[in-house]
Amino acid sequence: MKDYVVGVDLGGTKISCAISDLKGRVIAQSTIPTLAEEGENAVLDRIIKSIDTVITEAKVKTNEVKAIGIGSPGPLDSKKGIIITTPNLPFKDFDLVKPIVDYFSIPVYLDNDANVAAIGEFMFGAGKGTENMIYITVSTGVGGGAILNGKIFRGSTCNALEVGHTTVFPGGPRCGCGNIGCLEAVSSGTAIGRRANEAVNSKVETSLRNYEKVTSYEVFKEAEKGDAVSQKILDEALTYLGIGVANIIASFDPEKVIIGGGVSKGGDIVFKKVQEVVNERCFKVMSDNCKIEPAGLGTEAGVIGALALAIMESE
Amino acid sequence: MKDYVVGVDLGGTKISCAISDLKGRVIAQSTIPTLAEEGENAVLDRIIKSIDTVITEAKVKTNEVKAIGIGSPGPLDSKKGIIITTPNLPFKDFDLVKPIVDYFSIPVYLDNDANVAAIGEFMFGAGKGTENMIYITVSTGVGGGAILNGKIFRGSTCNALEVGHTTVFPGGPRCGCGNIGCLEAVSSGTAIGRRANEAVNSKVETSLRNYEKVTSYEVFKEAEKGDAVSQKILDEALTYLGIGVANIIASFDPEKVIIGGGVSKGGDIVFKKVQEVVNERCFKVMSDNCKIEPAGLGTEAGVIGALALAIMESE
Repeated sequence: MKDYVVGVDLGGTKISCAISDLKGRVIAQSTIPTLAEEGENAVLDRIIKSIDTVITEAKVKTNEVKAIGIGSPGPLDSKKGIIITTPNLPFKDFDLVKPIVDYFSIPVYLDNDANVAAIGEFMFGAGKGTENMIYITVSTGVGGGAILNGKIFRGSTCNALEVGHTTVFPGGPRCGCGNIGCLEAVSSGTAIGRRANEAVNSKVETSLRNYEKVTSYEVFKEAEKGDAVSQKILDEALTYLGIGVANIIASFDPEKVIIGGGVSKGGDIVFKKVQEVVNERCFKVMSDNCKIEPAGLGTEAGVIGALALAIMESE
Repeated sequence: MKDYVVGVDLGGTKISCAISDLKGRVIAQSTIPTLAEEGENAVLDRIIKSIDTVITEAKVKTNEVKAIGIGSPGPLDSKKGIIITTPNLPFKDFDLVKPIVDYFSIPVYLDNDANVAAIGEFMFGAGKGTENMIYITVSTGVGGGAILNGKIFRGSTCNALEVGHTTVFPGGPRCGCGNIGCLEAVSSGTAIGRRANEAVNSKVETSLRNYEKVTSYEVFKEAEKGDAVSQKILDEALTYLGIGVANIIASFDPEKVIIGGGVSKGGDIVFKKVQEVVNERCFKVMSDNCKIEPAGLGTEAGVIGALALAIMESE
């Protein structure tokens, strides 16, 4: 019986790997450094070694493993199993799936971080029990993944839910992608940090100036303490996040929008503002039907998502 | 053999009905006035009569009809088969599907105009051969429908693709829905007409003043003749339409966006501008992959879409 799956969370600094049963109950786990500087094939070998390790440790036979799921930063082509490029990994147009399939003779599924997180939340996190669910991560960048009718929806070029690059402020700042007024350019942790540094470098009075280095973390901290400038910066960033979420609700009509990533750790202030904007901007029937919640999985989200990917795709 | 389907296009002024084979080839057709003022049951009777007429005219037996598709203005609940309300028809929380199922003993599928148009374009119009396709209608209002993985995607409350009420201009004019800066409030025919009338009632020099009544039609006409004010009004409206389309492409990653409705009849000026904005704002891999095209079905789109709905849902 093929009662097990393996999940691999491929990151720039570490490779996390786990084996679980088909309900996602982890039996064995391994984390090793990525050592990205050693190049494509060395990292591939380390991935294979990780998978081997957890299968052995779990005392499972290779032919009892139903599928392997791999979550990786993108852009990547999950249909072809190819990592196109990624800033912190050595892979360039690299077929990651085929050599692993060849080695283990097990189906291997590759997907990007945001989709994997969406699948993880859907199966084991805050999205359990939904049919249509959107996951949005607000961190250095802003990304997303969609579960529609109980399945991951990837779109035609595997780039669906590039929600970070939807326009929410046409006259706004330029985004790293080249466009103007992207959600990522106004609501990401990076954007909040940039606004904070603009304030620090201006004549405005703000307690943010007490720090040597200011990031979004300090803005949340000082806003809570009552710094008006920090509150204003957050209010603006979260209003645009609310607009982005409202647009996603108007487009997908989901039962749940789950927000993860560093900025979501801001807690109540984030979810209150986003909900307020959504109530203002969405049709009542849709906003009443759609819950906006923080991600349910913690630091292990990546590897749990990869297990969920393997389970979903091999069903 | 169940080799036929019936399609009904329910409008405020007329009920169009057709019977076709499973490839959408129409065998018989009927159009009668709606006479909405006669009330719910009278209109229901006229719908049933229409269906009876085309089945009889086509010399088909009722048990050879596989399904009946009905397209209606919304909002409606296609899962429950209920028309919630609609401005030009007498139905209020009216179960339209059950009495027709009871009468004919044939499965009946109800959906809103925009979804029905999307299905029609997907099966028989500009969307043929795609897997993921978005239909947007830009007319008095702005609406849409999505075909994802070859099926209509309705969302959790049957309101997916309320693209007209996505925010594209946060500081913009108030929309009829109550929100500020909706796509519909800046890019619909109504919005273009309103901007034109603002110009006419101001001191600006414009040839729009030569008309007794100004709508979006005159704006397109005068823009083509070189009126700078008309050109400016269109450029603004179409830029926002481009932003709305770009956001839809970033969200759904479709192979095609099909634009129908009155404004799309503006032709080249519309599609050139929308394409320009999309090229500017979307990831190249997605904009290169996604064609933006005018709707392929003409005045019969409603009834052909209803036939397509019956075919798709009964497959």
